Amino acid sequence: MRIVFIGSGNLATRLSLRMKQCGFEILQIYSHTLSNAKILASKIECDYTDSIENINDRADLYIFSIKDSILEDVISKVKSNKGIWVHTAGSLSIDVFSKYKKECGVFYPLQTFSKEKECDFSQIPIFVEGSTKDVESKLTKAASRISDKIYNATSEQRKYLHLSAVFACNFTNHMYAIAERLLKENNLPFEAIMPLIDETALKIKTLSAIKAQTGPAVRKDVNVMGKQIELLKDEKFKNIYKILSDNIIDFSE
Amino acid sequence: MRIVFIGSGNLATRLSLRMKQCGFEILQIYSHTLSNAKILASKIECDYTDSIENINDRADLYIFSIKDSILEDVISKVKSNKGIWVHTAGSLSIDVFSKYKKECGVFYPLQTFSKEKECDFSQIPIFVEGSTKDVESKLTKAASRISDKIYNATSEQRKYLHLSAVFACNFTNHMYAIAERLLKENNLPFEAIMPLIDETALKIKTLSAIKAQTGPAVRKDVNVMGKQIELLKDEKFKNIYKILSDNIIDFSE
Repeated sequence: MRIVFIGSGNLATRLSLRMKQCGFEILQIYSHTLSNAKILASKIECDYTDSIENINDRADLYIFSIKDSILEDVISKVKSNKGIWVHTAGSLSIDVFSKYKKECGVFYPLQTFSKEKECDFSQIPIFVEGSTKDVESKLTKAASRISDKIYNATSEQRKYLHLSAVFACNFTNHMYAIAERLLKENNLPFEAIMPLIDETALKIKTLSAIKAQTGPAVRKDVNVMGKQIELLKDEKFKNIYKILSDNIIDFSE
Repeated sequence: MRIVFIGSGNLATRLSLRMKQCGFEILQIYSHTLSNAKILASKIECDYTDSIENINDRADLYIFSIKDSILEDVISKVKSNKGIWVHTAGSLSIDVFSKYKKECGVFYPLQTFSKEKECDFSQIPIFVEGSTKDVESKLTKAASRISDKIYNATSEQRKYLHLSAVFACNFTNHMYAIAERLLKENNLPFEAIMPLIDETALKIKTLSAIKAQTGPAVRKDVNVMGKQIELLKDEKFKNIYKILSDNIIDFSE
């Protein structure tokens, strides 16, 4: 399977490296910033371009891994070809291709990626959707070569996957950021909270998150909650504390 | 060092088992519920009681590991003795002992404990405070036998440790719980989000949480945020989404 990547960001970087490792033939990297295309292409050892017109038209699979806001515009400019076109966006429907390509799909790895940080791709869930049974089967086959965890998800389901990821990853990281700030302000080392963070993530492997809940809110310990809200000087932090505690109590009932 | 535990909850259970493992002599477990005292004492192979009057007075260290709300009441009822008295509460000051005991302190392991789940105590940070230098040094010495990570923290600092733990553990778990609910409602498997949760916890080992932040809010992607808020039917969820996104933007500026 010959592949062209449209995009050279975090996801495109990790996915293309993994695909190369698994024996796929990457023909070309396109990025509208030539230097970015070049950096990734040098790792992959393939061709690169910053011109949409020069995108190689002999690939079997075109993976669009670019910002949601410009995706459709870029799709509309790629010359017609025989390959399957897929995007990797959680929030966008497969329909974004409908005006331009019949054989299309989505290839959504549910993970947070960094360009520089390696990851064990074999454990990353990939959610596949195809415009036809044949396309879906081809995409599933390709996905199975790079990960052990392949799922199907409709565009509607994928929206909720992405939304859940915002809670489980982005908002969780923000909880860490608030903890980090509180510790720093009080001359306490952030690393001291790492074992707690690890254990919290580990616990839900064996318990549902509802059952794993601990702390003053789930105990309805109004005394401790009141004192902790007082400790928070920032009105926004106080508000976050109250709303989340309130919701924890809701969930426990 | 001979020890009496006042309390038989999650923390008392894990700490007493670890102390026994490290060669401390546990004389007795007190709990106001006899059956709980008995269960833990049978694991430790020691004496137990549900009567405050019968608490063994020959120990070197008394570890009060009971609910914040009843701690001072129980302290006030324990007969005078020669041992050091400590509590294990994040939110309570060392001063809770001041009317009753001169040689006192705090022994605060920063972790979430379960009675049944084993943990690697050697990696759990323990924050120690003593009423005198001599007491603090004895407590630090004892703590060093059970963990590699010993810190000093004043009562004031410890309040913020506990508050940070609420964000990094309790509120983080609630983010998982919301994600779990959203996935369930859309017939998606919760386990598919585990690698993302793991990676999120792992990332902050090498990056500050501020720098590790990803997602629509930090990108100020108003379009995706608007769509995701629409997907959330529950007004409380919408509110949480907005407030946390807003705060992520604040932090990034």
